[in-house]
Amino acid sequence: MNDVISKVRSGDVRTVAKLIRDIDDGIPGVWEVLKELHPYTGRAYVLGVTGAPGVGKSTLVDGIISAYRAKHITVGVIAVDPTSPFTGGAILGDRIRMQRHSTDPGVFIRSLATRGQFGGLTQSTRHVVDVFDAMGKEIIIVETVGVGQDEIDIVRTAHTTLIVTIPGMGDDIQAIKAGILETGDVFVVNKADKDGADRAVQDIQLMLEMNRHHRQRETRWIPRIVKTEAHRGLGLDKLLEEIAAHREHLFRDGREHLAAHLRNKAKIELIDLIKQRVFAVVMEEAVQSHWLDSFLDDIIQKKIDPFTVCDRFLTERKI
Amino acid sequence: MNDVISKVRSGDVRTVAKLIRDIDDGIPGVWEVLKELHPYTGRAYVLGVTGAPGVGKSTLVDGIISAYRAKHITVGVIAVDPTSPFTGGAILGDRIRMQRHSTDPGVFIRSLATRGQFGGLTQSTRHVVDVFDAMGKEIIIVETVGVGQDEIDIVRTAHTTLIVTIPGMGDDIQAIKAGILETGDVFVVNKADKDGADRAVQDIQLMLEMNRHHRQRETRWIPRIVKTEAHRGLGLDKLLEEIAAHREHLFRDGREHLAAHLRNKAKIELIDLIKQRVFAVVMEEAVQSHWLDSFLDDIIQKKIDPFTVCDRFLTERKI
Repeated sequence: MNDVISKVRSGDVRTVAKLIRDIDDGIPGVWEVLKELHPYTGRAYVLGVTGAPGVGKSTLVDGIISAYRAKHITVGVIAVDPTSPFTGGAILGDRIRMQRHSTDPGVFIRSLATRGQFGGLTQSTRHVVDVFDAMGKEIIIVETVGVGQDEIDIVRTAHTTLIVTIPGMGDDIQAIKAGILETGDVFVVNKADKDGADRAVQDIQLMLEMNRHHRQRETRWIPRIVKTEAHRGLGLDKLLEEIAAHREHLFRDGREHLAAHLRNKAKIELIDLIKQRVFAVVMEEAVQSHWLDSFLDDIIQKKIDPFTVCDRFLTERKI
Repeated sequence: MNDVISKVRSGDVRTVAKLIRDIDDGIPGVWEVLKELHPYTGRAYVLGVTGAPGVGKSTLVDGIISAYRAKHITVGVIAVDPTSPFTGGAILGDRIRMQRHSTDPGVFIRSLATRGQFGGLTQSTRHVVDVFDAMGKEIIIVETVGVGQDEIDIVRTAHTTLIVTIPGMGDDIQAIKAGILETGDVFVVNKADKDGADRAVQDIQLMLEMNRHHRQRETRWIPRIVKTEAHRGLGLDKLLEEIAAHREHLFRDGREHLAAHLRNKAKIELIDLIKQRVFAVVMEEAVQSHWLDSFLDDIIQKKIDPFTVCDRFLTERKI
């Protein structure tokens, strides 16, 4: 065990890769390793990057990696792909682009696509963040495709969250932006060479303005908006500046907020662990239960309703 | 109680609207109503409609409603919006368009945005399907924005699932299509007047071809691909034909598959109910627990790890 811990801490690629695979596969023994790693976590700065499909998140993340590496800052990247429940593995898509960094020992990139029980993906992401943290990565980028509940849970544990949009998308995009508005610390209008970039900036400004009262009471941070053309490397320095500004805000002006954030994060993580364990125990019983199975045909034939069966199960199980 | 049930069954708009609001708000008493409604469910045909933001799902659904209404078939629509965890209400966006059907007594449209505990949205959606079903709606359309795990869980309970795409989206879209490929019974290339529509059809065909062996063994259905221009009402008749073809397949050639589907659906729903109940009991204890709270600072200061705290909680709780 101590051998694994020290190998992770010294950044041994093979050990870390195996550990991440075990996390993604939900190997039970992984908890023991994470337990031992816990004292060495909490130093990395976590960036969440989210936005709708097609906005160029991977290209942007690729650019952010380069910009941090130019400053000799080490980077871990977790590309989370909750869109692939059946294929069982993360689809790389244009993330292959990022792989040009894979020969740089200061960069570690992994895709996650954990399936299975509740919270699997969110939990695995957190655990991989902890592993990257323990191995000494200074910046950890969590990139998620899409903007569902999973993604919001995932970015919620980041220190700074970037919401990526592009000019000229339809009403759906507007709806999404409104929904995740409160999670965004820095808004990125990528592909800013396209028509409508200034309009997109104004739309975001307007929405932020409308939500200012609610938001500022909580964090006293006014979200920034940055235009980028990630494919040409434009706007990235400005983006890093705004991220740094938010970081400084958190650790200086926002210390109270940071303390609350850390407590809240610890509580959410603890409750998620409990959920997972309760699941592992109770759900395995339920799934395996011939007793439950014996009611299925009666439910379909409307002889009994599922609510009654559920209540009986809980009574039997004394919960 | 009996009054509520008979009012739902006779399609009383006010009663149904209140019931759906209670479902969305997670009012506990709603279970009792759903229990009583259970015998009257199982007759409607459920269509799942999903796809990335911006593909025009709402316009398409609007067109599908019109096409069914022209055949005097009654329709219920559930617009699921999992992108809005903070605002607390479903964002209508361009769904307002659909509201032109709201004066038609044969159509019932509701948005859902349930937040809160695990599975909230998936479960609420199912329950609203049951309500629409009990009130006699013949076709129930479940439309979801985005393509995360929530959405896949939601469409998985549909009889026929439409995956909507548009020509010329990037690699992200390809990745999503690959990920949800197995859930699609009919693929719609909407906005087919745009460049690249035929290419999009070919891409889907290619992917289906690659997955054929896996898929056919399970359902023996070869997914159809339909081009539509929903904003002009084009392609909708063809789309309805393909949906009808899939329906016929399910009830005739695929009866074994349908029976398995029903049992599987009943089991998933039962287990989700159990999850929800276990949550309501155990999680409320955890969230309220001062005992758990007392460990948060120690966790942050790395004096104890969350895994150990979790294990102690479960031991105390005798799970």
